Amino acid sequence: MKARVHVTLKDGVLDPQGKAIAHALGSLGFQGVGDVRQGKVIEIELAETDPQRGREAVDAMCRKLLANTVIERYEIQIDR
Amino acid sequence: MKARVHVTLKDGVLDPQGKAIAHALGSLGFQGVGDVRQGKVIEIELAETDPQRGREAVDAMCRKLLANTVIERYEIQIDR
Repeated sequence: MKARVHVTLKDGVLDPQGKAIAHALGSLGFQGVGDVRQGKVIEIELAETDPQRGREAVDAMCRKLLANTVIERYEIQIDR
Repeated sequence: MKARVHVTLKDGVLDPQGKAIAHALGSLGFQGVGDVRQGKVIEIELAETDPQRGREAVDAMCRKLLANTVIERYEIQIDR
């Protein structure tokens, strides 16, 4: 089973990487670019076959290691 | 319109960040974790309203700035 986790900064947390990308896109001549935010995507291969238990395991991984829940939120997607 | 871009290393390109995550998860006691790969997710707010033209613009952004197409692949998702 494969899990895909998105970790992004919570709304309201300043995202300097996103700002830098928006600025660079403007400099390259791209018009109409508004807010840009950058996050991480983590793809994990799991031996677990039960989607529910897989999701619980990945949720624990997010809380313990993958996301800083003070400033980041995460979203788990399970592909069977 | 909002575009979401996933930029991940191509298969076969060594991903030391992913390896470090897999190792850390193992150290934390998580069982059955196989390959882990880390990439970036970039969310872009666009003034463009036509999905087709929006996708073309984001594709150009990926080729020019967001992805290094020698070692990375990208995937564009348009949310209207």
